[in-house]
Amino acid sequence: MAWPVTLLLGLCILMSALSAQADPDAIRSSAMSETRPSYQVQPIGWIRKRDGRTFIEFYEDYRPALLGVDQLDSLWVLYWFDRNDTPEQRSILQVHPRGNPANPLRGVFATRAPMRPNLIAMSRCRVLGVEGTVIEIDDIDAFAETPVLDLKP
Amino acid sequence: MAWPVTLLLGLCILMSALSAQADPDAIRSSAMSETRPSYQVQPIGWIRKRDGRTFIEFYEDYRPALLGVDQLDSLWVLYWFDRNDTPEQRSILQVHPRGNPANPLRGVFATRAPMRPNLIAMSRCRVLGVEGTVIEIDDIDAFAETPVLDLKP
Repeated sequence: MAWPVTLLLGLCILMSALSAQADPDAIRSSAMSETRPSYQVQPIGWIRKRDGRTFIEFYEDYRPALLGVDQLDSLWVLYWFDRNDTPEQRSILQVHPRGNPANPLRGVFATRAPMRPNLIAMSRCRVLGVEGTVIEIDDIDAFAETPVLDLKP
Repeated sequence: MAWPVTLLLGLCILMSALSAQADPDAIRSSAMSETRPSYQVQPIGWIRKRDGRTFIEFYEDYRPALLGVDQLDSLWVLYWFDRNDTPEQRSILQVHPRGNPANPLRGVFATRAPMRPNLIAMSRCRVLGVEGTVIEIDDIDAFAETPVLDLKP
């Protein structure tokens, strides 16, 4: 290749690189078109129900993470809608709130519907007692044997 | 084998099966010793910051899920502490709250620390505006380019 052509080519590459860097929209669009990452979550414990009472039973290895929970009056319980963990349920994007066809359609992000792309649920619960790796809470709108993902004050 | 021995053995097996079924603690313990399931989450969008303003930019395919979000004054934003997504950070179970060694150690489930087994974060945010697949919110304690997992009213 003659050197003026090589020089011209080099300049073109440099300029396109500079313009891509200077344009925030170009950066954003390319970020949105990348392959989407995927993250893993695992249960830290499970919802248990017995004799009309509700408990969260934690795995023994998370015992240190519970230090101080007994000093809280209430906390956020994050759990997984595992009964809906199918590609079909996770692709539902609009619902009639409370399952009532009389309610106009709404996007799932504007509702607490148990079907949504990421099946994370959250409930504010009262702490009734802590014994070892078991926390008793007031009632929670989750089935028994539901996986719990996190607690937060 | 003589038939009385066979009969006795059969009875023993039957009784142990029945007693295992009748004992809720046995059922619970076996559930806790099973291999732990793992669930997948994926970003629905990303935190963007520009000129001192904060936005969430959603993937185009989630546009229908935003129907009605413009009618909310505020919402929960669930996001992923992706900067801490290493086995080391996810195995931290106790912290000094606010990173201050003067604060006594606490279990991560009694704090909002950004290192925890499942790196889910939640913030209550005001909705300042919605335009297509971009929502403007007031400030959020998350880095720019943080993956967003869910919105809830």
